[in-house]
Amino acid sequence: MSETFAARAAALDAADRLADLRKLFTLDDTVYLDGNSLGALPAHVPARVQEVLTREWGELRIRSWDESGWWTAPERIGDRIAPLVGAAAGQIVVGDSTSVNVFKAVVAASRLAPEGRDEILVDATTFPTDGYIAASAARMTGHRLVPVAPAEVPDALGPRTAAVLLNHVDYRTGRLHDLPGLTAAVHAAGGLAVWDLCHSAGALPVGLDAHGVDLAVGCTYKYLNGGPGSPAYLYVAERHQAAFDSPLPGWTSHADPFGMTPGYAPADGAVRGRVGTPDILSMLALEASLDVWNGVSIEAVRAKSLALTDFFLECVAEHVPEGRVTSVTPAAHTERGSQVALRCEDAEPVMSALIARGVVGDLRRPDVLRFGFTPLYVGFADVERAARVLGEVLKP
Amino acid sequence: MSETFAARAAALDAADRLADLRKLFTLDDTVYLDGNSLGALPAHVPARVQEVLTREWGELRIRSWDESGWWTAPERIGDRIAPLVGAAAGQIVVGDSTSVNVFKAVVAASRLAPEGRDEILVDATTFPTDGYIAASAARMTGHRLVPVAPAEVPDALGPRTAAVLLNHVDYRTGRLHDLPGLTAAVHAAGGLAVWDLCHSAGALPVGLDAHGVDLAVGCTYKYLNGGPGSPAYLYVAERHQAAFDSPLPGWTSHADPFGMTPGYAPADGAVRGRVGTPDILSMLALEASLDVWNGVSIEAVRAKSLALTDFFLECVAEHVPEGRVTSVTPAAHTERGSQVALRCEDAEPVMSALIARGVVGDLRRPDVLRFGFTPLYVGFADVERAARVLGEVLKP
Repeated sequence: MSETFAARAAALDAADRLADLRKLFTLDDTVYLDGNSLGALPAHVPARVQEVLTREWGELRIRSWDESGWWTAPERIGDRIAPLVGAAAGQIVVGDSTSVNVFKAVVAASRLAPEGRDEILVDATTFPTDGYIAASAARMTGHRLVPVAPAEVPDALGPRTAAVLLNHVDYRTGRLHDLPGLTAAVHAAGGLAVWDLCHSAGALPVGLDAHGVDLAVGCTYKYLNGGPGSPAYLYVAERHQAAFDSPLPGWTSHADPFGMTPGYAPADGAVRGRVGTPDILSMLALEASLDVWNGVSIEAVRAKSLALTDFFLECVAEHVPEGRVTSVTPAAHTERGSQVALRCEDAEPVMSALIARGVVGDLRRPDVLRFGFTPLYVGFADVERAARVLGEVLKP
Repeated sequence: MSETFAARAAALDAADRLADLRKLFTLDDTVYLDGNSLGALPAHVPARVQEVLTREWGELRIRSWDESGWWTAPERIGDRIAPLVGAAAGQIVVGDSTSVNVFKAVVAASRLAPEGRDEILVDATTFPTDGYIAASAARMTGHRLVPVAPAEVPDALGPRTAAVLLNHVDYRTGRLHDLPGLTAAVHAAGGLAVWDLCHSAGALPVGLDAHGVDLAVGCTYKYLNGGPGSPAYLYVAERHQAAFDSPLPGWTSHADPFGMTPGYAPADGAVRGRVGTPDILSMLALEASLDVWNGVSIEAVRAKSLALTDFFLECVAEHVPEGRVTSVTPAAHTERGSQVALRCEDAEPVMSALIARGVVGDLRRPDVLRFGFTPLYVGFADVERAARVLGEVLKP
């Protein structure tokens, strides 16, 4: 029976048109299912970073701000990310952490909302930083924070709703939320929709422009493989840019940054979302990392992602003793991101045992085993092995 | 006469006990007097960054958050910077840009101030980002922003003063402000003193603890040579840490970040100043860069800095036609940072001509030639050559 699954994995890998992309990454015999936490290293990045260090910083020094294109990196790299999340150019700027961008986006959304609206809704099940930062944004703009489960958002919307901050894919369960439907509902209520794309960008189509999203943020170190703590990004829909009012109006967002005038005058366009001096080493490592996406369609990535998670669930059903794990990731494709989360007793020692056997996922306390499937470099044989090893670990 | 200056430069270089440090940097025949904008590359940094990329990210991947010490980098590197600015360990955390840290510091200071105080004073001549960000902090905390020249701060202080944001060294003129005296004056008025150390840290003793500074921020890419846009830092004096109330309470500042609980509970200590996931590549490049400070006393750096700027002013007086430039940097040592700013007609083409002849300073519009003296790698022969070339460029 196991042979059947191994044979199916081999056939699926042979038919996988994205399979060759794995060669672009530095990988080993480990089955790495934690790319939804830290993406793998694209193999060409170290050479590019060396060039940045030795030539651009070491030799050109200050001249590189112009000559090596450092100054315009935030918006240039934003335009590289744009097609991956369904955004036209000129709406995304890279820089700062996701948390800082959540603050910019939620404050700006609350200021863009029609006057008199005093509520900010936030996904109560969200990755914690979004809730903490939204609470600070609400406190500092005089709004009331309303934590609400995503399914209950439509009922919680109303004439008091200024802005709604939602995660596209839940970091714990892997549930994919209905971005088009929820965005439309928020708009119907007269509010603005802010989406956190940390767990969806690079794994599935987002369609920011097509679905009329107002603002969005995301990290670049998961499915976008930008490196540990690489800079996040901020999307401001073009129609909102002229009125985008940043709570962090740093000098690099100024219309004339080198005029160094005492009065602040915001730049036009996505640049308005910049804050301080851009973090060049991390930013240019990210820019190089994005090369692996050349010629890759996000629809093909999504198709493979679903095939991987489907196959993993099948293999788990085959290999793991019944009742030992329960998937908390939705079975329906329309509700599934690119990870599978399994509730499991003793999750902590189980994950340690998996890692010791070369299958790397992670743990979300207290009892969730989390496995991320990154279609650019995870194959079906990896999936089969991961489920098989999980079965071995869990067999009594 | 010029020979006399060249001979004096040679003698000064021969007697310079910091002269050997220059070998630690990647430099060439250029006279680089722009290290106050972007410090030079410490030569060992590229190899360390390669190790971070290929071994820590490439091979260990997610394990490096623990095994390579990534998670604790912000406070560990903060403790490396601490002795350079006169702070005991446990009060500095590295991360985010200077602008973002100014926001944290000014908002937190206004919240730490006694109730009923509604004014935030800010240096009206400051680097613009500080003013822009302070204005946003004031707007979002319900304070009134009062821009005031540093010399007039004592008169502007009063029972309404909550916090005062000042630059230690003015970015344009190079004027060193009286940190001990102004901090004492702010305290006497019952307010909190926030200092921006961008242009002083690594160039002269700061004495944060000794002078009772409340909060401080600074960048690391000038005299600290951390690389383009390397992460900034935040100092929160130990006595304020328990009440430090961040406007950016990201998940990595949580008491139990991996508990991922919906409610925010701040960590103890400097860690409370963290926000999002730390930017590891840039942060570890900075950490490596700080090795050049091993065994270097900041007092020795200051002594050499003053000798360099004194000698530069002398050489300029010798080589440059009278009346062609005017120093806007104070002559008194107690009022001078580590740069010399010369007002000059046609400053823009003059700086271009200097750069074309291998003397790199920078321009602050409309009419200031700015020369930064970084004692770790600038010598007296560099100074003599810079002034001589300036004289050649300016001769009719």
